[in-house]
Amino acid sequence: MQQKLAKTRVKIHELMQTRWSPRAFDPDRMVSHDDLIALLEAARWAPSCFNDQPWRYVVCNKATDKTGWQNAFTTLAEKNQLWAKNAPVLILATAMSNFNHNGKPNRHAMYDTGAASVSLCLQAVALGLVVHQMGGFDAEKAREVFHLPAECTPLAMMAVGYQGDASLLDDAFKEAELAARARVELSQQFFSGRWGNGFEQ
Amino acid sequence: MQQKLAKTRVKIHELMQTRWSPRAFDPDRMVSHDDLIALLEAARWAPSCFNDQPWRYVVCNKATDKTGWQNAFTTLAEKNQLWAKNAPVLILATAMSNFNHNGKPNRHAMYDTGAASVSLCLQAVALGLVVHQMGGFDAEKAREVFHLPAECTPLAMMAVGYQGDASLLDDAFKEAELAARARVELSQQFFSGRWGNGFEQ
Repeated sequence: MQQKLAKTRVKIHELMQTRWSPRAFDPDRMVSHDDLIALLEAARWAPSCFNDQPWRYVVCNKATDKTGWQNAFTTLAEKNQLWAKNAPVLILATAMSNFNHNGKPNRHAMYDTGAASVSLCLQAVALGLVVHQMGGFDAEKAREVFHLPAECTPLAMMAVGYQGDASLLDDAFKEAELAARARVELSQQFFSGRWGNGFEQ
Repeated sequence: MQQKLAKTRVKIHELMQTRWSPRAFDPDRMVSHDDLIALLEAARWAPSCFNDQPWRYVVCNKATDKTGWQNAFTTLAEKNQLWAKNAPVLILATAMSNFNHNGKPNRHAMYDTGAASVSLCLQAVALGLVVHQMGGFDAEKAREVFHLPAECTPLAMMAVGYQGDASLLDDAFKEAELAARARVELSQQFFSGRWGNGFEQ
């Protein structure tokens, strides 16, 4: 199975070093209920502003709820459907717009939900699972099929399952699946003391 | 040192199980340059929409740049200054508003930056460090002291260092430092197949 290790100047923890976002899923291997719970627990214990826990997730497991899964699948961009069809679980990540304790806008809601989602992704690594998050889905359609309340914002659809072989993919995706992971230079995003002053490595 | 394990129905990885947000920092123990790099690398390799990597961080290390650290410190809410004064490193997390590849608004920028930040927090756990993120800081002041460009949004200030004893804290914070971590029930935030249908444990 394709592995992609992050190339780092100093060693980082293996969860973060090995996590990546494959598109090739094993269509025949379902995710156990306990493993799903572990993914959700990892998200649930993420930090959040005022411990508001603004995230809300809709989990759609093909193995136990074909209708829910199909609803999630229909919201996906066509290009994503081509590979996500093999993912046994699709999870919609959403954020509540307002704080629970005072009803005022929570400007950290998306930030905190992103933290919860990547915690889920890292727990997946720990369980031998993989996750590929997608921005390419119809948020309004998701609102409709899942009866989301107005005060929540759909943010990402996550494909979850066991990694499959790259040969399962359409040609259009094979190259990306086999290419190395890439990031811009650390000093372009991480500054020391003031904006633009690249952190010295 | 105070430990706070997440209480979960099934086991989750120890990084997520043990991470929490202490306020008591050891004022005498600085963070090594290599450990700082590891924290940043963990953030750098987080996933993002279109691999845009919208996060930008300003790292303020008291040990090497008193001015930068003091600038960060002055942006903090008074209540946070009471304890964050002992944190040897303050890191400002910001997100770029627009995609790099086409200049259009990136509605996932905050979500992705939250993912990068919590990756940094989890790497801190792996290194025996702790992080406490704060929403309580003056974003406009941060914009000013760090000369942030208009197209970036300051989101959180992170206090980073080695954990100190709770006795270091003002009375107002001791209780929170010693209290158990709490989350709402899993079934209230994680749904199965449709909104509101609590995920079965």
